[in-house]
Amino acid sequence: MNNKILELINKVKQVSPLVHNITNYVTMNNSANALLSVGASPIMSHSNEEVEDMIGICSSLVINIGTLDTFTVESMLLALKTANKLGKPVILDPVGAGATPFRNKVLNDILASGKIDYIRGNGSEIIALNGIAVASRGVDSSMSSMDSLETAKILSKKTGAIVCVSGETDIIVYGDKIGFVDNGSTLMTKVTALGCSSSAILGAFAALEGDKFELAIASTALMGICGEIAAEMCSGPGTLQLHLLDKLYNVTETEILERIKVRINE
Amino acid sequence: MNNKILELINKVKQVSPLVHNITNYVTMNNSANALLSVGASPIMSHSNEEVEDMIGICSSLVINIGTLDTFTVESMLLALKTANKLGKPVILDPVGAGATPFRNKVLNDILASGKIDYIRGNGSEIIALNGIAVASRGVDSSMSSMDSLETAKILSKKTGAIVCVSGETDIIVYGDKIGFVDNGSTLMTKVTALGCSSSAILGAFAALEGDKFELAIASTALMGICGEIAAEMCSGPGTLQLHLLDKLYNVTETEILERIKVRINE
Amino acid sequence: MNNKILELINKVKQVSPLVHNITNYVTMNNSANALLSVGASPIMSHSNEEVEDMIGICSSLVINIGTLDTFTVESMLLALKTANKLGKPVILDPVGAGATPFRNKVLNDILASGKIDYIRGNGSEIIALNGIAVASRGVDSSMSSMDSLETAKILSKKTGAIVCVSGETDIIVYGDKIGFVDNGSTLMTKVTALGCSSSAILGAFAALEGDKFELAIASTALMGICGEIAAEMCSGPGTLQLHLLDKLYNVTETEILERIKVRINE
Repeated sequence: MNNKILELINKVKQVSPLVHNITNYVTMNNSANALLSVGASPIMSHSNEEVEDMIGICSSLVINIGTLDTFTVESMLLALKTANKLGKPVILDPVGAGATPFRNKVLNDILASGKIDYIRGNGSEIIALNGIAVASRGVDSSMSSMDSLETAKILSKKTGAIVCVSGETDIIVYGDKIGFVDNGSTLMTKVTALGCSSSAILGAFAALEGDKFELAIASTALMGICGEIAAEMCSGPGTLQLHLLDKLYNVTETEILERIKVRINE
Repeated sequence: MNNKILELINKVKQVSPLVHNITNYVTMNNSANALLSVGASPIMSHSNEEVEDMIGICSSLVINIGTLDTFTVESMLLALKTANKLGKPVILDPVGAGATPFRNKVLNDILASGKIDYIRGNGSEIIALNGIAVASRGVDSSMSSMDSLETAKILSKKTGAIVCVSGETDIIVYGDKIGFVDNGSTLMTKVTALGCSSSAILGAFAALEGDKFELAIASTALMGICGEIAAEMCSGPGTLQLHLLDKLYNVTETEILERIKVRINE
Repeated sequence: MNNKILELINKVKQVSPLVHNITNYVTMNNSANALLSVGASPIMSHSNEEVEDMIGICSSLVINIGTLDTFTVESMLLALKTANKLGKPVILDPVGAGATPFRNKVLNDILASGKIDYIRGNGSEIIALNGIAVASRGVDSSMSSMDSLETAKILSKKTGAIVCVSGETDIIVYGDKIGFVDNGSTLMTKVTALGCSSSAILGAFAALEGDKFELAIASTALMGICGEIAAEMCSGPGTLQLHLLDKLYNVTETEILERIKVRINE
């Protein structure tokens, strides 16, 4: 599996997929830089006048509901339908799911409007998305990712999507397959929009040919490994984010193989 | 006073208040990171469909008019009324006050729609907010903060708000009480949105129980101290902002006590 | 020419022009910081309620179509007309030109609504703007800047604008005058929104009195020189952007004179 992951990480750089992001204002810059660092190309565009045309030239679509408004929701639904029609993979990051009725309504509308290939969020968001109400702490996670394993399985079966739950251990669920990634650092929770950047990077991997479960594992492992190296190099959350971008750009195969902690179906 | 300030800085980390920000696009990322670094949790949301629900789960509201549009103004007014009804403190950052009639009209609408607990801006903005026209240099301050002390006193009495004026010496005015904070660095004026980050951090302190004047002093001192340490560590305005986030996260009690320069009512 | 460039770089710091930016959400923060670093003052404002008043107090206008929506297009057209009426220079950054029909229509509307003084983009964008369709790789450049020299000449003659084409060699065309700037680093293409920052900085130089062609050369050279120094200092694209802001702030005359590679009309 580890060599497969290496291969996919290299493949993103070779293919350099163009990833269309309809995302929130907090992360636009970070996500674009994260995509450039892993070797992909970002498109950040949210206007319903051009969203269908943009999907046409991109290889995948990332929908992130962080800073919602009605105008952008229209574009998200239109983009989702277009991506489905053109057979391009769609990633959903349900930021703040469960925090407000509006947010939940929008998520319902999205799930009802088309097929999502990958869902990535923290434990609270995944559980909220599955219809179980939890008290929200906004966009932070108030539950450990392990609590949400059972919910992720149900959500994956309901939606047909690969469900990625970020947390101390990241969990990737696809039907009966379960993967665990033990990389990363708790300091990453002190930097805004790193989850959003993970979803953007997942968009780059999703654009590749290959086994969807493996693509999600590779993407999650890359972010975790680079995050933990950056956390060791930095002197706080400010410098962490810069070292993370540097490392996403120049992480070596040796670093990946020495650090990777992926378990499948255990 | 200094020990009280230390106590409040620690308390933010313990309580980790959830702060709702309706703010401008330039600072969204910085303000969210600043809040995470001091130990609080950010919500960045500006949609009138969910603004009332968001206030319900947050501990304070920060309204920042940096990049205004009509849609967001509606949300600001709705959020303000809801926060007042629920008894949650409100911080107003009148970015660019005085620069355009639209900006002034919006500020008037805000002041007429509810009670503001804290106002934080530079000297020009505070003076403009008080109805005295000055030539604008946009969002930068064209007056020293000392020139605006008298105006801040009047504005505080008019509005009942604590008025914080940032400048070479930061001034905090609440009725007859006046505090001065001599920390900080002029290099901070070469980084965009640090004033906005100060307002966001003030939102975290405002969420605590306690004397409102002391909360404002503590918040201002923390930003000033971390800013001046970051200015000494950095090699320019680019690296300053990263060191500032690091230092907001890991400033020690010793650093605070050695550097703090707060005077009350002198 | 090199001493003239030095003089103009110093003059930006002395004059500290106020630059109005109607720009995209990805670059707002970067562009504001880039302007502060070179000694100018940024205004980021996109609301049609205040755009005319903002132009009134600013010295130049930068229009950047990165993350378009209908609301902002209205403001762009209004701002352009006002700037023309008041005789203030206008810079256009046609981000993603050619990527979608909407983007092309907006660019046509902009060109039809007023006079543009400077156009700055990559090769693909300049060619698309000139009406020649090329396959888009989003906002990245898929052509070298040398391929677009002939097109830049035509576009400059059609529009009367100075056309700046960024690439391995940056090209500046104004009527029959052609300048080449060989500074910069390919690592700069791995950081989002540096082109947008170049356009913002061009807005600062455009605000000065003087020969427009020389102003564009000076602005391009400053960005290239600081970018290549930053690329040598950094450990990847994350740290590059911070070192770039530092260097824009503190680049020395010696550094400029040692590194500058400008050729005119060769």
